[in-house]
Amino acid sequence: MRILGIDPGLHITGFGIIDKMGSKLAYVSSGCIKTSSDSKLPPRLKLILDGLNSIILQHDPHYVAIEQVFVNINPKSTLLLGQARGAAICAAVLNSLEVSEYTALQIKQAVVGNGHAKKEQVQEMVVRLLRLEGKPGIDASDALACAICHAHGGSGSAAAMYYYLKRGRVV
Amino acid sequence: MRILGIDPGLHITGFGIIDKMGSKLAYVSSGCIKTSSDSKLPPRLKLILDGLNSIILQHDPHYVAIEQVFVNINPKSTLLLGQARGAAICAAVLNSLEVSEYTALQIKQAVVGNGHAKKEQVQEMVVRLLRLEGKPGIDASDALACAICHAHGGSGSAAAMYYYLKRGRVV
Repeated sequence: MRILGIDPGLHITGFGIIDKMGSKLAYVSSGCIKTSSDSKLPPRLKLILDGLNSIILQHDPHYVAIEQVFVNINPKSTLLLGQARGAAICAAVLNSLEVSEYTALQIKQAVVGNGHAKKEQVQEMVVRLLRLEGKPGIDASDALACAICHAHGGSGSAAAMYYYLKRGRVV
Repeated sequence: MRILGIDPGLHITGFGIIDKMGSKLAYVSSGCIKTSSDSKLPPRLKLILDGLNSIILQHDPHYVAIEQVFVNINPKSTLLLGQARGAAICAAVLNSLEVSEYTALQIKQAVVGNGHAKKEQVQEMVVRLLRLEGKPGIDASDALACAICHAHGGSGSAAAMYYYLKRGRVV
């Protein structure tokens, strides 16, 4: 099962792809799509749509998991963020992919085991769970965390499983 | 020049297509795409995207004009509206169409000659300017008004032109 996680944003949209084979997770790819605030909104949304579309065509994920964005900002920014998230979801539905939505709390709970963990803790656990050699950027890391959350059914089992595997056998 | 006007919304997205030949405007088509609040967000965005995509493929517009939405509502609704608007813009950019954005004030100014006109006045002027036999629904009417605004370069010239034509020759 291949999962594409997305951390949507108008300026930076993070993406992260992982494979789940049984109880094992494997890193496939990650990165981010940046758009310039000098551009108008429609071409910025096109960049997000086309960028994610290319990633989907290249990596052929089975599922898409997208972060529920934080809305306690000013209305103008909320509207812009909404439009970026809309474009990201469009890239998935265009490719007939099922989209699951997870809150930051669910993602942190699933990855760190604490819904109120800091971004750096999430990043750290992403590196451990996927046995990465370097740290991915914060947006890519959030997207990978979203994919990990989906891999574990949105529950708080990823961190628990990691520790179990650590005690049982180093993988 | 064929213009597709869009009045975006998650529940109802209005669309209206007009042709501009010289200074004459002609009605082509209008209607709305409805999505159910019983559905999850991704399939609702897919309906908007696929619906507008079909309309674009069927009518082959040269330009897309979309209404700037009103953001002085609660953050959750603003975010949902933003996502619907993002999906509408995606349908346009997917087809490599240029998208122009107009505020409600600009549209009312262009169609009625008064930026603070009521929706019913806009509807009435849309019927007159396009010589329609019946009233289009309020969402379709807003979308047609947006297209008319684009046809007149976003300026307040449509209503003025109508009166000019009325005095000169009934068309």
